[in-house]
Amino acid sequence: MLPLTKDMQLIEELLAGNRRALARTITLVENDGPESRNALASLYGHTGRAHIVGVTGAPGTGKSTLVNALTKAYRHRGFTVGIVAVDPTSPFTGGALLGDRVRMRDLSGDAGIFIRSMATRGSLGGLAQATAGVILTLDAAGFNRIIVETVGVGQAEVDIASTAHTTIVIEAPGLGDEVQAIKAGVLEIADILAVNKADRDGVEKTVMALQMMLGMGLRQTSHHGQTMEIQEGITASPAWTPPILKTVALRDEGVDQLLQAIEGHRDYLHASGEFQRREEERARNALVHILQAAVLRRLTNQVPARQIQDVVAQVASRDLDPYTAAERLLPAVLAGN
Amino acid sequence: MLPLTKDMQLIEELLAGNRRALARTITLVENDGPESRNALASLYGHTGRAHIVGVTGAPGTGKSTLVNALTKAYRHRGFTVGIVAVDPTSPFTGGALLGDRVRMRDLSGDAGIFIRSMATRGSLGGLAQATAGVILTLDAAGFNRIIVETVGVGQAEVDIASTAHTTIVIEAPGLGDEVQAIKAGVLEIADILAVNKADRDGVEKTVMALQMMLGMGLRQTSHHGQTMEIQEGITASPAWTPPILKTVALRDEGVDQLLQAIEGHRDYLHASGEFQRREEERARNALVHILQAAVLRRLTNQVPARQIQDVVAQVASRDLDPYTAAERLLPAVLAGN
Repeated sequence: MLPLTKDMQLIEELLAGNRRALARTITLVENDGPESRNALASLYGHTGRAHIVGVTGAPGTGKSTLVNALTKAYRHRGFTVGIVAVDPTSPFTGGALLGDRVRMRDLSGDAGIFIRSMATRGSLGGLAQATAGVILTLDAAGFNRIIVETVGVGQAEVDIASTAHTTIVIEAPGLGDEVQAIKAGVLEIADILAVNKADRDGVEKTVMALQMMLGMGLRQTSHHGQTMEIQEGITASPAWTPPILKTVALRDEGVDQLLQAIEGHRDYLHASGEFQRREEERARNALVHILQAAVLRRLTNQVPARQIQDVVAQVASRDLDPYTAAERLLPAVLAGN
Repeated sequence: MLPLTKDMQLIEELLAGNRRALARTITLVENDGPESRNALASLYGHTGRAHIVGVTGAPGTGKSTLVNALTKAYRHRGFTVGIVAVDPTSPFTGGALLGDRVRMRDLSGDAGIFIRSMATRGSLGGLAQATAGVILTLDAAGFNRIIVETVGVGQAEVDIASTAHTTIVIEAPGLGDEVQAIKAGVLEIADILAVNKADRDGVEKTVMALQMMLGMGLRQTSHHGQTMEIQEGITASPAWTPPILKTVALRDEGVDQLLQAIEGHRDYLHASGEFQRREEERARNALVHILQAAVLRRLTNQVPARQIQDVVAQVASRDLDPYTAAERLLPAVLAGN
C-alpha cells in the first residue's frame, strides 16, 4: 500500500520527531478509511520498540493520579511516555474531565510526554480499533513506554487494556461489595495488582482478599484466553505470579516499586518467550480483523445496496434464514479477485 | 442447508412440543459447528413470534427475584415464558447459584416455563452468539415471551440484553456512587427502568436521579447505536420515553405494572414501525456475522496452517505490515468459489 504524497510527508515529519505531525497523524488514524489504513501500513515497520502498559481500575481507585505519578517516575529515569486515556464519556461523572485537568497541570509542557484522550461514546468495537491505531502511532513516533488507561467497568475497555504487554489492575480499599463481581473478571487479566490509596482503612483486608483470589486459581486461564489452533513450535512459558503492590499515588509512595515491577514483567516476557507469543497473537488478531473488514467492504462495494436490503428484508420476515442468505451473498463477495 | 436426518427428527420433535427435544436442541445450538448452523437454519422459519425482553442490572438489585415474579405474572395471564439467564461464573459471588436455586424452587414443574443458564466464562463473543441461538430455539419452540437476564457489569452482557425487543434496566436504592459510571452507560439501552427494592430508604432519591439522567438527554443516541448506511425507506419513529417504575419483587408489588409497561412497549414497537426496523437491524447483523465467520473458515480451510503462521511471524517481526499481509492472503481466501 502506498500512502498519498501528502500523508507520506506527514509520516516523515512524525518519524523526524515533529509533535504537530504526530497529533495530525493520530487524528488521521482514529478514523477508519483508506487514508487511515495507508498511514498505519506505513507506520507499522517503525513500531515494536515501545513497551505497552495497560492500566485499568474502577472509578474511585485513583487511576489517573497513579498514571501521572508513574509517568513522572519514568520521565525521571529518562524514558519518554505516551498516554492514551480511554474515558467513558458521561455527563454525570466529572471524574474523567477532572482527572484530565489534574493531568494537564502536572504533565503539560514536557516534550517527552504525549497525552491523548479517547471517548467511549459510540461504537466500542470502533474504539478498540481507534485505540490500537493511536498506540501504533505513538510507538512509531518513538515513545519508550505507552500507558493505556481504561476504566475497568466495560468488557470492551478491559479488552483494550489487556492487549498491552503488561496489564496493571488498580484496586482501592473500601469500594464496597457491589463491585466484587467486576473485580473477579478483571483480575484475570492482571500481570500486576496495585492497591492504591493504601493509607486508607481496610488496605490489609483488600490485599488479603486479592491474595486469596489469586490463590484460588483465577490465574489458570491464559492471559488472553484465546486458543491458538494453528500455532506451532512455541512452548508454554513458566507461570508469572502477579505481585500485589501498595501505592499512595498522591504522595508518590510505592510508585518506584510499581515501575520496577513493570520493568521486571517486561524482562520476564522477553526472557520467557512470552513476549514473542503475545506479539504473534496480536499480529494474528490484527490480520483476522483486517480481513473481515475487507470482506465487509467487498459486500457493500460489490453487491448493490438494494439487493442487500432485499435479502435483509427477507431474513427479517423469516422468508429466508440468514445462513442460506449468507451462502447466496458469498459468491458476489468473493467475485472479482 | 439441509440438516442431518437425526437432527431433522430432533427439530420436528421440538416443533411438536417435546421438551426433551428442546433441551437437546439447545445443547446442540450452544456450540458453534455445522450441526449447530444447520439446526439454526431449519429453526429460523419458525421464529419471529416471541417477544424478547432483556433484563439487566448490577448485582444486588434483585434482578433474579424480579424476573421470577414477572414470569409468574405472565403465566397467570396464560403466556408461556422462556428464561435465558446469562451469569458471570465467579467462584467469589454466590449470587448466581443462589438465584438459580430460588428460581428453581419457584418455577420448576411448570411446562409453560423453560429456564436455561449460560455461563460467561470463556469467550464473550461466543457467549453472545450462543445466547442468540438459544433465544432462537425457544422462539421456534413457541414460547410467547423470552426473558434474557444479564448482569449489567460487562459491555458484552449489556450488548446481549440490548438485542431484545424491550430492554429493562433494574436499579435499586443505595448501591453506592461507585456504580454510577456503569449506570450511565447502561441507562442508554433502557426502554423501561425498574427501581426494585422500592421499600428501602432512598428510593425517591434513586427515582429522581434517574429522571434527571433521562432529562439530560441520555436518550439522544439510538437504541442500538449503529448506523444503517445502506438502509432505505424507513422513517424515524416517534420517541419512546422510558417509564420509571417502582417494584418490590419479593412481595410482587409493581410487577403487574411492569408487565403492562412491557406490553405497552411491545404495542408501541409494532405501531411505530420500530419493531420492523429492529428486526431488519437484527437480520443485517446476523448476516454480517455469518459472512465474517464463513470468511474465517475459508482462511483456515484454504490456506495451509504453515503459510498463515509464516505471515503472522513476519507481521510480528515487523517485516510485513498487517494490511499488506491481508492483501496477500485475500486471494487465497476468495479462491475456489
